[in-house]
Amino acid sequence: MSKTQPARGMRDFLPADVRRREYVIGVIREVYERYGFEPLETPAVENIETLLGKYGEEGNQLIFKILKRGEHERTGKADLALRYDLTVPLARVVAEYGERLPKFFKRYQIQPVWRADRPARGRFREFYQCDVDAIGSTSPIIEAELCAAASDALTKLGFTNFTIRLNHRQVLTGVLNMADVPNDKHGDALVAIDKLDKISDLGVTKELLERGIPETSARELLDFFKGIKDRMEIIERLEQAALQGNSDITEEALRTKVNVSLNNNVLERLSQHSEGDELFAKGVAELEAIIRYVAASGIESKVRIDLSLARGLSYYTGAIMEISVPDLAGSLGGGGRYDNLVGMFSGRDIPACGFSLGLERIIVVMTEREMFPAELVKTGADVLVTIWDEASVMDALALARELRAGGLRVDVYPDGGDKVGKQFKYASTRGVPFVAVAGPDERARGEVSIKDMRSGEQQTLQSGAVAAKVVELLGHKS
Amino acid sequence: MSKTQPARGMRDFLPADVRRREYVIGVIREVYERYGFEPLETPAVENIETLLGKYGEEGNQLIFKILKRGEHERTGKADLALRYDLTVPLARVVAEYGERLPKFFKRYQIQPVWRADRPARGRFREFYQCDVDAIGSTSPIIEAELCAAASDALTKLGFTNFTIRLNHRQVLTGVLNMADVPNDKHGDALVAIDKLDKISDLGVTKELLERGIPETSARELLDFFKGIKDRMEIIERLEQAALQGNSDITEEALRTKVNVSLNNNVLERLSQHSEGDELFAKGVAELEAIIRYVAASGIESKVRIDLSLARGLSYYTGAIMEISVPDLAGSLGGGGRYDNLVGMFSGRDIPACGFSLGLERIIVVMTEREMFPAELVKTGADVLVTIWDEASVMDALALARELRAGGLRVDVYPDGGDKVGKQFKYASTRGVPFVAVAGPDERARGEVSIKDMRSGEQQTLQSGAVAAKVVELLGHKS
Repeated sequence: MSKTQPARGMRDFLPADVRRREYVIGVIREVYERYGFEPLETPAVENIETLLGKYGEEGNQLIFKILKRGEHERTGKADLALRYDLTVPLARVVAEYGERLPKFFKRYQIQPVWRADRPARGRFREFYQCDVDAIGSTSPIIEAELCAAASDALTKLGFTNFTIRLNHRQVLTGVLNMADVPNDKHGDALVAIDKLDKISDLGVTKELLERGIPETSARELLDFFKGIKDRMEIIERLEQAALQGNSDITEEALRTKVNVSLNNNVLERLSQHSEGDELFAKGVAELEAIIRYVAASGIESKVRIDLSLARGLSYYTGAIMEISVPDLAGSLGGGGRYDNLVGMFSGRDIPACGFSLGLERIIVVMTEREMFPAELVKTGADVLVTIWDEASVMDALALARELRAGGLRVDVYPDGGDKVGKQFKYASTRGVPFVAVAGPDERARGEVSIKDMRSGEQQTLQSGAVAAKVVELLGHKS
Repeated sequence: MSKTQPARGMRDFLPADVRRREYVIGVIREVYERYGFEPLETPAVENIETLLGKYGEEGNQLIFKILKRGEHERTGKADLALRYDLTVPLARVVAEYGERLPKFFKRYQIQPVWRADRPARGRFREFYQCDVDAIGSTSPIIEAELCAAASDALTKLGFTNFTIRLNHRQVLTGVLNMADVPNDKHGDALVAIDKLDKISDLGVTKELLERGIPETSARELLDFFKGIKDRMEIIERLEQAALQGNSDITEEALRTKVNVSLNNNVLERLSQHSEGDELFAKGVAELEAIIRYVAASGIESKVRIDLSLARGLSYYTGAIMEISVPDLAGSLGGGGRYDNLVGMFSGRDIPACGFSLGLERIIVVMTEREMFPAELVKTGADVLVTIWDEASVMDALALARELRAGGLRVDVYPDGGDKVGKQFKYASTRGVPFVAVAGPDERARGEVSIKDMRSGEQQTLQSGAVAAKVVELLGHKS
């Protein structure tokens, strides 16, 4: 391994990479701001006690630990650690600034986190999280707004056919109780159920039994989830068939119709099953409210209840969400309600619900599917100002100044000793669209020649008119 | 110490802090882009060998070291470290991606660095650097462009009366040789000379002697620098007096006139002194070129040669620059040419010149002097949409959607159970300028009431007209 590579699992971002990342972050940030979320930033480094014990045994192993400075350095004692996620720092901030924060603290945070994972394709040791969380309210309006914000962000980035899968932890608990799964086996059962989308029914049954779920419970669970899944497929096909003759209907309207049917059907079945189980019924009522609210928010076509969605993290207490895109394993993001976590440092329960978009994955998909806008800046400059000879440097710098004042990004070729042909070649290699030249004759007349490197056309202008002309020819600035 | 504070020397940035920081970073970034610089980002974590030995013995102590993961954790072995500055990672990137980078690699990098310094007022363990460097050219055009870029950035941020002090390492060496300071004492002499601005002449003399500079050399040095300084003061006063009667002259023109006189005078003296000393003469010629070029770049009023400027870092090989602001100890930024450093990983000299703006200091000064624009967003939302009752949630969400589509930042009050009065009070506490209410009567008529919280005025509009009206009343969006 060469010594100049970045550390294992870390990446350098060259200019084109940075521009792509900033474009995505900019879109997400703007959408979150529209929804009334505000930016928060916390340090990369936290006291080690803040992080230890918050992510389970495996998490503890994956935290990067920093040696205590000075005398204790030889002892190997670590007193600091690198941020592992954005949720624990949020909980710390809520406890620390309590009164200074609004009653409903709606924050987004887009910062890197570090995990000492084994690096693999698409898995890095430094990666960005884009978290958005609303603290302080138990209302399902929050869930609906979070789904709408995530949906708007992805839509603005050019994603069209994604689905926000929605479920509820209390509903899952209700279903598990219904099937007489012992309380201490709920976690195991959910891990197996979560795979219904990925492996065969037989595989799921096998895993349920291996994880110690009683056979009768396993059979009942599979019946229930299979029944729901089969029914969903039938509804989806029937709706699509019924609408196929109707060429007036848009893709969006079709999706909306299918989702409305499916969601209503699932909610109906759930309300029958949950009769008499208070928590189960509360979960169903919340799901029902979220579905109603997302309709008002205009994203019915994106949200679908999926009872097999379980999500790995144990801290969720209510609704859970995950974003799927066709032909992509894994998700673009996910989240849910976690009413007991943010209070960990303040010692009281504080309701919270959040959503996290996976920046690295979004960028991978957008790059593979060529979703970045064509006008995304690809070069360091709009114009290269050449240097004819030493005597012309002053004029070149004055021209650069004028062009910059006109809103252009301008590079001045630094080595006046290089032939002008070489300078043109440099502009061409760099993809700079315009080159400005002023030889002695032109300078004597107060003129500048501008060459459009894309068309090869060249024109001579009064130097004061160059900025406006290039802006016009570029056509993407005003 | 409470357990919820950030780690020692680190800071949380609440929304208003983040907005101020992003404003400053945004301005700096835009100016750097105008000058043809491109963004680079490197990982927060580097292999420890990449950093060790690059910052001197003291620097080694201040590097945050990260424990090796897994089996070696108990041994206290560190294999990674936190980024200490942005220059060493740049050198690594130049070596790693050589051919993939342009011949003249002009990059800016605005990222945090970490130093295990003893925290103090204004000194943090995590802070941002805003570096801009041009790699690959020895031309003084680079120095002039860097000065112009830094000057533009500060001017756009609202700084008016700053001065970019300019000097040259080879000129300093020439002066030290002229005074027969032994080669191995040059560093010591510069440290003392650098204090001419801060302590008395006697203090500087004393320090020169204490640092082992021969008495004759010390006297000659002091004569030289004092002579230059006195002459500069005289010129400055004469020019100012001569111009005082002339009320037509602008502050800017006055500064330009004074700087031109001073710079010419210093350059004249230096060219006499440097006769026969090749390196000295080359340094003077470069200073002269930079001064000519900054005039073409329109920043004559900002740049002044100051022969007492030495700058601490040992790696500079040519021009050095530092930005001073009246009534501020220390500088807002600085830089210089360092032709031997970037090649440290590639094993060959690569010319480089850079400038670093001190983000934390700029923000402190701008905050103290109230330089942030009044229209800088201070709240999370332009409009709070209230919830009259459960039945009105759907209409409220639909209204929020419409207002967001109209370009507004909209918060929906989540807890419908709260009285509308309480919701208004929340908006007022949060500084949200507009509140939207739709009670049963208004909803029946398809109307919405909008209250301007600043004037107290309320008006009722057709719901479709609300977005445009609020945009108009806010007056800062179109």
